[in-house]
Amino acid sequence: MALDEKILKQLEAVVGKDGISTSAAVLYTYGFDASVYHSSPDVVVQPTSTEQVSEIMKIAYANGIPVVPRGAGTGLCGAAVPIMGGICLAMQKMNRILNVSVKDLWVDVEAGVVYNDLNAELAKYGFFFPPVPRSGEACQVGGMVATNASGMRAVKYGATRDYVLGLTFVRANGDIVRCGTRTIKDASGYQLARLMCGSEGTLGVITEITFKLTTKPKKSASALVTFGSVVQAGKCISAIIAKPLIPASCELLDSTSIEAVNKARGHPLPDAEAIIIVEVDGETDEVIRRDLKVVEEVAAEQGAESVTPSFDSAQIAKWTDARKSVLASLSALMPGYSCVSLADDMGVPVSRVPEAVEKFQAIAKKNNVIVAVYGHASDGNLHSKMLLKVGDADEWDRGIKTADEIFDASISLGGTVTGEHGVGISKAVKFQEERKTELDCILAIKQAMDPKNILNPGKAAQWRGTVKRNLRYPCEEYM
Amino acid sequence: MALDEKILKQLEAVVGKDGISTSAAVLYTYGFDASVYHSSPDVVVQPTSTEQVSEIMKIAYANGIPVVPRGAGTGLCGAAVPIMGGICLAMQKMNRILNVSVKDLWVDVEAGVVYNDLNAELAKYGFFFPPVPRSGEACQVGGMVATNASGMRAVKYGATRDYVLGLTFVRANGDIVRCGTRTIKDASGYQLARLMCGSEGTLGVITEITFKLTTKPKKSASALVTFGSVVQAGKCISAIIAKPLIPASCELLDSTSIEAVNKARGHPLPDAEAIIIVEVDGETDEVIRRDLKVVEEVAAEQGAESVTPSFDSAQIAKWTDARKSVLASLSALMPGYSCVSLADDMGVPVSRVPEAVEKFQAIAKKNNVIVAVYGHASDGNLHSKMLLKVGDADEWDRGIKTADEIFDASISLGGTVTGEHGVGISKAVKFQEERKTELDCILAIKQAMDPKNILNPGKAAQWRGTVKRNLRYPCEEYM
Repeated sequence: MALDEKILKQLEAVVGKDGISTSAAVLYTYGFDASVYHSSPDVVVQPTSTEQVSEIMKIAYANGIPVVPRGAGTGLCGAAVPIMGGICLAMQKMNRILNVSVKDLWVDVEAGVVYNDLNAELAKYGFFFPPVPRSGEACQVGGMVATNASGMRAVKYGATRDYVLGLTFVRANGDIVRCGTRTIKDASGYQLARLMCGSEGTLGVITEITFKLTTKPKKSASALVTFGSVVQAGKCISAIIAKPLIPASCELLDSTSIEAVNKARGHPLPDAEAIIIVEVDGETDEVIRRDLKVVEEVAAEQGAESVTPSFDSAQIAKWTDARKSVLASLSALMPGYSCVSLADDMGVPVSRVPEAVEKFQAIAKKNNVIVAVYGHASDGNLHSKMLLKVGDADEWDRGIKTADEIFDASISLGGTVTGEHGVGISKAVKFQEERKTELDCILAIKQAMDPKNILNPGKAAQWRGTVKRNLRYPCEEYM
Repeated sequence: MALDEKILKQLEAVVGKDGISTSAAVLYTYGFDASVYHSSPDVVVQPTSTEQVSEIMKIAYANGIPVVPRGAGTGLCGAAVPIMGGICLAMQKMNRILNVSVKDLWVDVEAGVVYNDLNAELAKYGFFFPPVPRSGEACQVGGMVATNASGMRAVKYGATRDYVLGLTFVRANGDIVRCGTRTIKDASGYQLARLMCGSEGTLGVITEITFKLTTKPKKSASALVTFGSVVQAGKCISAIIAKPLIPASCELLDSTSIEAVNKARGHPLPDAEAIIIVEVDGETDEVIRRDLKVVEEVAAEQGAESVTPSFDSAQIAKWTDARKSVLASLSALMPGYSCVSLADDMGVPVSRVPEAVEKFQAIAKKNNVIVAVYGHASDGNLHSKMLLKVGDADEWDRGIKTADEIFDASISLGGTVTGEHGVGISKAVKFQEERKTELDCILAIKQAMDPKNILNPGKAAQWRGTVKRNLRYPCEEYM
């Protein structure tokens, strides 16, 4: 639906000429995120304050216009793709760090603050905001809350939901709600601030957030461990945790991921069937040396082929860069094939990681699809990426079948279809199966909070139809 | 309202003769919690499984009977007092630790498991569930979730909400909902498990919980620091945090609390205007020695009268016992006076603790009421207790006026009326003022989840009338 001139003028009156665009190129651009989907909004609006968001929502509410809040568009499942058109509410101008209150252990930020910028500021005081998404140099903290993002350090430090003390959001009708507190503790009413974590723009527009701060450990070190099989690697991780030793992070790469990285990046990793990179952190050298020794001992017990401990930050950075390059490297692995995010973000109980990886690999083989498996194995969060010829409908059918089977396997292992990327479009069908006992409550809360259904409508619990609707690639079910 | 025989027979058919009581003595007993309120239920039912809870809720739903879930009844604000009668759902028989999955970092428990029993089990594996309520030897984990309980360690380890990965609850209509996951990460749909934290039985009956585990630090030590004023003590705490040094706990006692403890318990504490007991923990002796040295240095800078560090667990236990005895000691301070929980649990930003304590003390003096202030000062959570002649209506009026003013002061300092005890009855009026922008959402979610309003009806956001309704003591507004 195209918006009429009168409404566009009303929106322009709120945000000014510089804050609104209906240019075809801009609308097209804002129809993408990092997923396989696309759908253009009718207008892109860039507010600079909570009050402007409130005015925009009042206009949308009065006219029944869909509104999709958008951070940096780094999401991998289509949550920010405006499948019903309407207003794309792009938050990048609300990028102020409002108040770092070190002595109170919190920071107030606007939703459009970039993750890395926040941590650069906090580092000045010896603090940090631990969840570390791969897209940290670009992604915005509002998007992190909306998707309950996390990353490598979740096993020790938790996800975004664990750091939200309070936030300000704008309701569908334009009402401004401040929920939660600026205190460490809060037992006052429902935890609305936590409910907003992972709500993907369907309950309100998050405009400001109060995050809890935590101190950054003074020391860290890593070990790169190679294995003859992914199963051994997975077992090693569970054994480390059961010691008990909770690592700061533990990244897993399977042979396809290792091959892709080594081919694209000049062989930064040893060749192996599986690699884990275990990071330990703590307050003193003694602590991290002790913990790294535990890692070495457990790795040897679990049949590791090699263990390379390192206290050298340059060496560790090289490993980290290699791990971070998996997605890009996969895209370069096979000419004519693109790397797509379909079953990209499964979570399983940590001890089921070996089984999960084996199952994913078997499913890929059976369907004749190349799938790389890697991820944050110590918190059971596995990423997989598929290589597909994206113009070929048959490839898509096989890819989606593979994704469905991977999702089913994750659920049957006691896991979830998404650990940190969110539901959006790509996981909506299987999410509804996974959460079948919750679905009534989810839809009832959605109805209570957004009775006109204008906030990111049609996503997640509301999604109908197949995973192939709204694909960005030209194949049969493209819209 | 009395329940008719037919309904009682239906309930008995679910839980058996041993699981139901309408004896006057039992009903009277289950009309209390640890607050100043009382109201008897019409029947006490003790289910032994989620399925039984579901059957009970179906009966209640069909007949419009209020249901109030109840843990150990250690709550201080009346959340478990059945002000509209109906069914008291007492959870103590659901006390099984179902599965400790150390390698997956979670534990599955029934709602009626006692906090200390859970930690005794986890200690076998080197793990713990950090929130440590004062009532840990009795309180049940279901009640801890329902009130988002915490205790001394929240500044470093967070509150109950930070440890809930998933849970099972029964809806008003008897539907069984499993929400959240048994994975460390979860970005799949709304965080219903977190929404249930602090919902005080108004959204559903929590029957099973999956808690995240964390490792218990191997070493800890404490320092007892005395000050010439509470303001200095409060400033010292903020200065420690800003170092940055996040203590494991930091307890504050004002002069009234110290006097009460010393009188009742054979003088375990030094006489002072204010005491803080700072606990540090970590992996090695080196770390805790380093941190304790920081505490000593900051204390000296902030004008402490004395600093007594201790690595001796017997000495530290003596201090901890003294701190834990404040409530009981206050009750023994003045013959004829009882210690009541009215303004018992304010949360303020840590740096506002000195101002808050000063204001609370000034308010008490102005209203001629004896108020002791103590609590978890490093997370800004201040407890206060009043001494009142509980049969005297005028004393109650002054007490409630004092509480109201203390709540107003907390809100004006950017705080909340309750950090860890919950809203229930005693904070309902001021809670509604504090959360005025949230109230519409809270009531909309309540309506969506409990359309017949049978789950702990009339509490918190639904409370109408004064704080004096349902008082357990004989004074004018007693029902």
